[in-house]
Amino acid sequence: MHVLIVGAGFGGLGAARALARQARVEVTLVDKKNHHLFQALLYQVAAAGLTPSDIASPVRSLFRKSPQVRVLMAELTGLDPVAKVARFDQGQLEVTYDALILSLGGETNYFGHPEWARHAPGLKSIEQALNLRSHVLEAFERAEKCTLAEQRRRLMTVVVIGGGPTGVELSGAFAELRRHVLRWDFRSIHPEEARIVLIEGGARVLGAFPADLSQAAERDLRSLGVELYLNQRVQDIGEGYVQTDQQRLEAHTIVWAAGVSGHPLAAQLGLPVVAGGRVAVQADLSVPGFPEIFCIGDMCFFPDAQGKPLPGMAPVAMQQGPHAARNALARLAGQATADFVYQDPGIMATVGRSKGVAVLGQRHISGTLGWLTWLWHHLLRIVDFQNRALVSLRWSWAYLTWKWGVRLIHQGPDPTHNRQGQAELA
Amino acid sequence: MHVLIVGAGFGGLGAARALARQARVEVTLVDKKNHHLFQALLYQVAAAGLTPSDIASPVRSLFRKSPQVRVLMAELTGLDPVAKVARFDQGQLEVTYDALILSLGGETNYFGHPEWARHAPGLKSIEQALNLRSHVLEAFERAEKCTLAEQRRRLMTVVVIGGGPTGVELSGAFAELRRHVLRWDFRSIHPEEARIVLIEGGARVLGAFPADLSQAAERDLRSLGVELYLNQRVQDIGEGYVQTDQQRLEAHTIVWAAGVSGHPLAAQLGLPVVAGGRVAVQADLSVPGFPEIFCIGDMCFFPDAQGKPLPGMAPVAMQQGPHAARNALARLAGQATADFVYQDPGIMATVGRSKGVAVLGQRHISGTLGWLTWLWHHLLRIVDFQNRALVSLRWSWAYLTWKWGVRLIHQGPDPTHNRQGQAELA
Repeated sequence: MHVLIVGAGFGGLGAARALARQARVEVTLVDKKNHHLFQALLYQVAAAGLTPSDIASPVRSLFRKSPQVRVLMAELTGLDPVAKVARFDQGQLEVTYDALILSLGGETNYFGHPEWARHAPGLKSIEQALNLRSHVLEAFERAEKCTLAEQRRRLMTVVVIGGGPTGVELSGAFAELRRHVLRWDFRSIHPEEARIVLIEGGARVLGAFPADLSQAAERDLRSLGVELYLNQRVQDIGEGYVQTDQQRLEAHTIVWAAGVSGHPLAAQLGLPVVAGGRVAVQADLSVPGFPEIFCIGDMCFFPDAQGKPLPGMAPVAMQQGPHAARNALARLAGQATADFVYQDPGIMATVGRSKGVAVLGQRHISGTLGWLTWLWHHLLRIVDFQNRALVSLRWSWAYLTWKWGVRLIHQGPDPTHNRQGQAELA
Repeated sequence: MHVLIVGAGFGGLGAARALARQARVEVTLVDKKNHHLFQALLYQVAAAGLTPSDIASPVRSLFRKSPQVRVLMAELTGLDPVAKVARFDQGQLEVTYDALILSLGGETNYFGHPEWARHAPGLKSIEQALNLRSHVLEAFERAEKCTLAEQRRRLMTVVVIGGGPTGVELSGAFAELRRHVLRWDFRSIHPEEARIVLIEGGARVLGAFPADLSQAAERDLRSLGVELYLNQRVQDIGEGYVQTDQQRLEAHTIVWAAGVSGHPLAAQLGLPVVAGGRVAVQADLSVPGFPEIFCIGDMCFFPDAQGKPLPGMAPVAMQQGPHAARNALARLAGQATADFVYQDPGIMATVGRSKGVAVLGQRHISGTLGWLTWLWHHLLRIVDFQNRALVSLRWSWAYLTWKWGVRLIHQGPDPTHNRQGQAELA
């Protein structure tokens, strides 16, 4: 029996690990990258606190000791669900399967404005995080050389759009970076005066959290000097500006953290998608009409008891992966599959040092205890031991010294952010 | 008094540090990058053992506590030595000086064949190291998917040209990577069978070392399975091949480590250069005709007692930097300058685990002791404490487990290596 898993995020990794322990199953795990990435910590790469390899591990080294798991780096480009064949790399590679588990993740959702992507990139990949880091650090370097007050002001303004966990954590991290890390390093500019702006369309940040924790996070953000605008909707984004329904903001750096949709490949492959581009799966995580195809993680739509989709978070994918793996085995053995039930382990977010919020069961936690809860849970989710040790070391060092070590500007791969910089220089 | 220092390698950094302790001197330190880079360890970034931030530190954070040192990120593009004005960023920034210390470093020397750069990049920058790492790792990923024996063989061949320290260390590191690190991670290919080829035009590797240590290094390289070709001269390099005067090698990855010349800007700025593009400085490191301009490190030609130029190594620049700084102060005070005398601290190179060679005074050291000597000296030269701790941790971990943690493929900035890859896939 051959189970093909596409995507090595928390979902695909969990499925492969569950199957690696089974006899008589061959597993092929394919990802377009060669590494598993802990996306929830990407914002710390962007804010110069961590380096990419701290939160990424080569997929094949994770299965070094599982001889029946074969790992390939290839990009899914086609699917024939009747013949049970998946095509990769524009058809250069074909893989047949008995069961298929798709865990492709999601992508940044611009809600009908793809043209904004150029000016306000999202934060889903290592490349985007590195570009954002270089872009922000280079802006401070240019401001130090700049004598025009207005241009200097714009270079030192960062606008983050979207008040979910990513937006809150990123704006908090940039606020700390400018206030504590960069503060003493310049002679002409005062980095601590840089504007960090967070725009949220709803009435509060962290809309998925209880209202008291949203208020705690808002208080924490304001104490770090983040300019917080609630109930403001973005109407236009262009070269160096954001226009909301209430104001125009001039900013050298704009980041989009306002939404995630399903994977665009789902519809292209002919899978049944609902609003947001997510695949509407059945209660056992299989795709309607294709009982041997399972779809998990950010790319699927799985309603909770209230009919709302489960959030695009690591714990959901981490539970769906092994569940889909067990159901795939059951299906191939001609047995009944089990419905997926999400065990909510709680949600958490951090704003900065000693500032975090968490919901664990009935308990609402904020402040230092919320931050420690966040730290602990995130350290545990780093998949390999060396990285856990390195991240612990970096976090301890940063805590003691306020020195964030990864402040390198190097020429970014995806030119989005850098192109913007070049245009302004010209 | 204003001293302008251009270049934040070991030379410029040493000069700035010497001046930071002086009263009544203002210092401006300019580099086109925002970080100081420990180039001698770049090969470990390319071989997935270290991450760029481990060997790079933001220049301005190194001078956080030196208020009279101003750090700027800008690229030198013009010089008016009569008016004592340096121009940066195509003239967007002008800086006047009383004394100028140039420490721009060198660049890869293709000996009249600039067209080879596209197929066989050098190893002088973070971007080149990251490109090389991604290129080699991606080649193994493609070989794992490939069914054509000949193509697979080419993908798994690395040719390093030049048997100096960089070429020896890089080919040794790749040899270990394929034999110990990647070995257990693939199912179709056998990474330990990958060809690592080192080509040297002279009769022995490490030509600057005593003959017995060259022999030790050659023995160590062969024990790691490196194919070593001495007395072979490269005649042509093209897409996926190297042609020497004795054979043609088909290789997906080709690296040029055969030569370093002075900085091309030296001649453009009108400074007097000798063969190799280096600036012929006087005994006090000043430039003939411009007593207030000093030139140090890889970009200058400074003859030793035998008339041979001092090698392009960190210790030379580390001694010339403070010396030039002192001479600049003397000149501005109307006092006599002192001639530079190089204190040779020894030379060393490593081939792999427990394999190193070193010359310390009259002693020739090889084997484990040579390796430990190398380790110790290189750890000490890492300029900040956090990076020294991180590198120690990574090296210890690698020693204990043979797991090299930085095996990430991400889209490289400079497309040289990647373009080559794309072309072959197409």
